Amino acid sequence: MLAEMPGYGPKSAQRAAFHLLSGEHARLKTLIAALTEADRRLHRCPHCNTFCESDVCDVCADEGRDRTMLCVVESVADQLALDASLAWPGLYFVLAGRLAPIDDVGPEEIGLPRFIERVAEGVAKDGLREVVVATSYTPEGDATAYYLIDALKKRWPDLRVTRLARGLPSGLEIEYTDLSTIAGAVYSRREA
Amino acid sequence: MLAEMPGYGPKSAQRAAFHLLSGEHARLKTLIAALTEADRRLHRCPHCNTFCESDVCDVCADEGRDRTMLCVVESVADQLALDASLAWPGLYFVLAGRLAPIDDVGPEEIGLPRFIERVAEGVAKDGLREVVVATSYTPEGDATAYYLIDALKKRWPDLRVTRLARGLPSGLEIEYTDLSTIAGAVYSRREA
Ligand SMILES: [Zn+2]
Ligand SMILES: [Zn+2]
Repeated sequence: MLAEMPGYGPKSAQRAAFHLLSGEHARLKTLIAALTEADRRLHRCPHCNTFCESDVCDVCADEGRDRTMLCVVESVADQLALDASLAWPGLYFVLAGRLAPIDDVGPEEIGLPRFIERVAEGVAKDGLREVVVATSYTPEGDATAYYLIDALKKRWPDLRVTRLARGLPSGLEIEYTDLSTIAGAVYSRREA
Repeated sequence: MLAEMPGYGPKSAQRAAFHLLSGEHARLKTLIAALTEADRRLHRCPHCNTFCESDVCDVCADEGRDRTMLCVVESVADQLALDASLAWPGLYFVLAGRLAPIDDVGPEEIGLPRFIERVAEGVAKDGLREVVVATSYTPEGDATAYYLIDALKKRWPDLRVTRLARGLPSGLEIEYTDLSTIAGAVYSRREA
């Protein structure tokens, strides 16, 4: 079980297990209690699928959010990072990961049907006009993006569908940047 | 001298000097000969300021390049990286570094007057219509970009002036990306 946690492999999971089991018994009990409490209190927001304690998550409940803009992400962690950047004024939808055909993770598994329902609701009720597909520029992130973009364009040809820019990250010199990132930065260049 | 080479500090320069001096004498002689030869053969292209062996560099001489598009970079290394990405169909201009007021490196020192001349030539002779300011998203790269953009817009209000996109680099998960990069990727997002 521990080996399936993010950032853990078999070795580090074993180390963590030994750490938990060999420490004071109180440490293990505290962890068990915290996990039990989280499991009892946290559930999925019915609108965006993120974790929350209340009926509807804080973002979906926020009247100041632009309901005509929806950002679809792979995970709660990605949603939190995007929201912390303060750059996105709209709402979110959190998928259950990304496509990984090799591991039998297809559109159903990542929650595509629920996402399509959510977009349909947005179009009908909130005048939804833009969906940003915010997946990373990795092979699986790309594959997931293409699938989502295709699913959206087929159903709503007039909806604006965008992707996060591929470009130069802050603080990195061009000379040390990989060619695929540079190419993306050229293609996505913007008015100065 | 060695300590001023890119990537070298006083310590590594000393190590390099000992390496050169303590090896076979042939190694040092070969290096001296190579540098002398490079110094004799390489000069600056009169159009773009890059290093070249012929009168005009290969890029400036290439008839297939789009002469209405000019990309201004901080160094020959940046130009080579950009050109290797195969994403830029136009020409280049290589500045002599970037603004660093703290070290008394101002517009004159980085070659701004020559750059402005080059743009004026392009506008007059080639119908130049876009200049991409391709500096990195570092404090000095930003300062240099703002200065160049301002200088261009003041002189040619109708010229399209762009910057490379700030965005997600290839291969990096959103969750591990710094907030300023994420914000740039949202603002520069593009039609899918
Ligand atoms: Zn929600
Ligand atoms: Zn040239």
